[in-house]
Order: sequence, then C-alpha cells, then structure tokens
Amino acid sequence: MIKAAIAGYGNIGKYVFEALICAKDFEIAGVISEHADSKNNAELAGIQIVKKLSGLKIKPDVAILCRPSRDIPEIAEECLKSGLNTVDSFDIHQNIAAVREKLDKAAKESGKVSILSAGWDPGSDSVVRALIEIAAPKGITYTNFGPGMSMGHSAAVKAIKGVKNSLSMTIPSGASVHRRMVYIEIEDGYNFDEIAKKIKSDEYFVHDETHVIKVDDVDALKDTGHGVHMVRKGVSGKTHNQIFEFKMKINNPALTAQILVAAARASMKQQPGCYTMIEIPMIDMLYGDKEELIRKLV
Amino acid sequence: MIKAAIAGYGNIGKYVFEALICAKDFEIAGVISEHADSKNNAELAGIQIVKKLSGLKIKPDVAILCRPSRDIPEIAEECLKSGLNTVDSFDIHQNIAAVREKLDKAAKESGKVSILSAGWDPGSDSVVRALIEIAAPKGITYTNFGPGMSMGHSAAVKAIKGVKNSLSMTIPSGASVHRRMVYIEIEDGYNFDEIAKKIKSDEYFVHDETHVIKVDDVDALKDTGHGVHMVRKGVSGKTHNQIFEFKMKINNPALTAQILVAAARASMKQQPGCYTMIEIPMIDMLYGDKEELIRKLV
Repeated sequence: MIKAAIAGYGNIGKYVFEALICAKDFEIAGVISEHADSKNNAELAGIQIVKKLSGLKIKPDVAILCRPSRDIPEIAEECLKSGLNTVDSFDIHQNIAAVREKLDKAAKESGKVSILSAGWDPGSDSVVRALIEIAAPKGITYTNFGPGMSMGHSAAVKAIKGVKNSLSMTIPSGASVHRRMVYIEIEDGYNFDEIAKKIKSDEYFVHDETHVIKVDDVDALKDTGHGVHMVRKGVSGKTHNQIFEFKMKINNPALTAQILVAAARASMKQQPGCYTMIEIPMIDMLYGDKEELIRKLV
Repeated sequence: MIKAAIAGYGNIGKYVFEALICAKDFEIAGVISEHADSKNNAELAGIQIVKKLSGLKIKPDVAILCRPSRDIPEIAEECLKSGLNTVDSFDIHQNIAAVREKLDKAAKESGKVSILSAGWDPGSDSVVRALIEIAAPKGITYTNFGPGMSMGHSAAVKAIKGVKNSLSMTIPSGASVHRRMVYIEIEDGYNFDEIAKKIKSDEYFVHDETHVIKVDDVDALKDTGHGVHMVRKGVSGKTHNQIFEFKMKINNPALTAQILVAAARASMKQQPGCYTMIEIPMIDMLYGDKEELIRKLV
C-alpha cells in the first residue's frame, strides 16, 4: 500500500480523499490542513488531521499537494526535503519549466520523485498535445476550454485583498482564444474598480479578454463541470489533412483529483527527479498487473 | 543523426521513407526489400537497396519493420540479435503480450531496444485508452474504427492462396462492434466459397461479422483514409458521468509510418528491453530540445 498525505483540504483535497478511498493500492496517512476538522468534515473520522507535516504519525510515501498553484513550489520543495515524493497540479503554464528545474534539483538531492502539473491542463491534455504532435509533427493544435469554471483562476481572484468570493468562467472563442468571465463578491470598504483592475492585470488574466462582474452571491452560480475540445490538423510525413480531436465533459475537481492520485502512484516507479506527465510512461499511472494492463489497453 | 533501415517497402515502407526524409534527426541507412528497386521506385535513387540486412554498407541504429504482422516476431528477433533496435506496428492484439515477452528477452540479451505495436491501434489509440482509464478508472471505453480500409486485415486476406488482390473495409456498428466488408479478386482455378470460408475463419476475422465480396478490380475501390472514434464514460473517484472522446480522420499508412519513425527515435532513449507505447514517455517520441518541448506542450 502506498501511504499518501493530502496537503490542503479545499475543493481538490476533498476529491483526492474520495479518489484515495476508491484506489485499492493506497492508504491515507493523514490530512495536512489549517482549516479541516473532523467535526465539519465527517468523512475524515479516523483520519489524522494535522497543521504541519511533521505532526503525522504515519510517515507518508507521497504528499498530494492540493494547495493554490502559487504555494506549490515552496511546499513541494519542503516535502521533498522531508523525504516525501510530491505530486501537484501546478497550472501556471509559463512557469512550469522553471519550477520543474527547481524541484528536479530538490528531488535528486533527497532521492525522491516530484510529479509536476499533473491535472488535466496541464496534465492529461499535455499528453494528448504531445501524442497528436507525434502523430502529425507539422500543424497547429488548438486547445479550447470550457465553458466551465476555472479553479486556478477562481482561486487567484479570491487571493486578491477585498475579494470575498469569486468564480472565473472560461468561455471558448475558438482557435485557443478564450474570454474570462469573473464573478465576484467584495468585502465592505473595498473599491470594485480597483479590484477589477488588479484582476485584469494578474498573470492569470493578463493575456485574455476579461470581464469582471459584481454579484451578491457567487455560490449560487457555481457548477464545477468543465470541458475541453482540442483539435489538430497536421501533416504526417508528407501527407496533409490528418485530423485529430479530443473532447472531455467532466467534473473538474474530481478529474484533477483522480489524476493526482494516478500521478502519486507513478511517483513510486520513477528514478529521483521532477517530471511532467509527458515524461512518464502512462502505464505507471495505472493500478494493476503490468501484463494484464498491456493485454487490456494496448 | 539516427541511422534507420526500412525493412519492407510496401504500403507502410513507402510512407516511412517520406516520414524519414521529413525528420531532421534521421538519415536513411538503406532499404531491405526483395521487391523494391530504384527503377520502379525513383525516390530511392542514392539509397542502398539490399535483400538482406547484412548487405547494408551503413550500419543502422534501428530497423523500422514494415512487413506483415505475422512476420514481425521472427524478423524483430533477428534484427535485435544483429545488434539493431527495432520498431514495428504489429497489430494482432491478442498476441502482443506474448510477442513482447519474447522480444524483451532478445532485446535484453543484445542490449538493444524493441518498440512493439507502434502504429495507431495498437499504438497511439493505446495511449489514449490508457490515459482515459487513468482519468476515470471505472467505466467502459468503446473503440469504434472506420469506415476505412484495414491494412492488416487486407494483407491477411491477400496472404491466402488464390487471392490476387484484397481490400478489407472496417465498418463501425457502435459500442466497439464492427463489420468487415472484404472485397477480393481471385486467381483462376480457385473456388470463391472455399476462400471466403478461409477468410471468415482467419484469426483476423473470426470475431467479427464478415462479408466477402468478389470483384473484378480491387484497386478501383482503394482509399487509404481511415478513422477512429473512442468514447469513455466513467467514474473519477466517486464522481460519475465523466465523458471523454477521441476522434481521428487520417490517411492510415501515413499515420502508421509517422508513429513508427517517432518510436524509432524513442528507441534510442530507452533501457534495453521491449516496450509498447504505453510503457514509454511521450516526450521521447518527439524531436527537439526537452525543455522547449515541455514549454510548448505541457
């Protein structure tokens, strides 16, 4: 059994808990959270909840990091230094290569494994992007998200001072172009226009057309369904017009959590270092006998 | 530069030649074929054509096997013993695990790498099947092929005595069920009913509803376009109704050839042994700088 700690018990953490319960090869070493308790989270009865990793009685093999992306590099490094594998769904695309380099160093120094950006985008979509580029090396891949709630973007907005609650919807405009529709509740005494300006200049939003809308009740708008539609038209050898499509309609935190758990499994099978999903064999993420998986899936 | 030999110069071999010409990291060590010559294959001018591997002046790093699936296990073993990596698109699904075991032994003894079943199904579709099972471990995946010409099935029919030319069309009936429509020209003195019976009892056809139709001119019917539509509806953790779809509309031999070339590239980066595509990291199949690929694709 692989002993996994859940670090962070928000949206993703709760679904990771469910995915771990359903996985036959995992046991839960504990939950690391400032906020969770077994009174408000009845499902955690019998699970140790601690504020610090060092408080856990069962030493985990791997920490599944369910914290906002911006906190990931530091927490992952800390866990690696404490002798744990880590997995996360870090989703700030432009920083992935740099974070990978930093965590690769920490992982190799501790003889541990870190799997970075193991959600669905980055994550499973990255695998599809790599695969269709293998199949047709010349051409364009379009990744069209949504319509759906972006957890990373919503969390980034919520982190802005004066924002009480937030929801960022991703609206596909086609050819990889998206609009962001941001719904916010603001705290008393804060100025809406200033907050809207901060949101629009944030790294998460600065590249997209972004609309910020003030609402009374963000929770009334929330639905965690999401999706993606990836399209590539390209060239295999000298043959044009090769067409590939990948589509998903999914519950977003449930999918992210499931992929994190699969990545935690794969972390037990890699050499020390930091990896993204396109750098690990797919079979390592699956539960079961290797020969049987090959018989079933190849 | 990776030195690749093309073993077999039929439908796939010709497209592998084109894909190698387009790949910046390959040079062509030569073509191994009983039939090809630079008179009938003008594109091969300046390329050594030999009947036996041992005749090649440039020693290849890898042999790309473009021969019928049934010949692959023997040829692959021979190449591995001669100190070459091999890649193939062996497509007899039920034999893959056994062939993998046999080639794994041969590869390890020679310190070489064999990548087995690197076409599109088995091959890139296998990666998609693994990926969507990672994303939703419970559920059913349907793989619906076509309509399109199956090269493996067409070749299997052509190998039957008395068959002059053949085309096997795959018609999807949904939920992974297919019909096979087999069009044949027969040689004088052979009995159609006996040939039809042989086709229907062949390993390639025995599991599917198969219709055999006698025609005067098979070539007039041939179009190498093909496709697949894979669908999975499954469960991530405890969350149901997660929906995944993968679709392709492609020139079949061009895609197979392109994936074979990508697998040949990946063969240079693995430890000795035999692998299917779900056992190798996707990034190893791509040309280019690792950091840049991560920046672009993850």
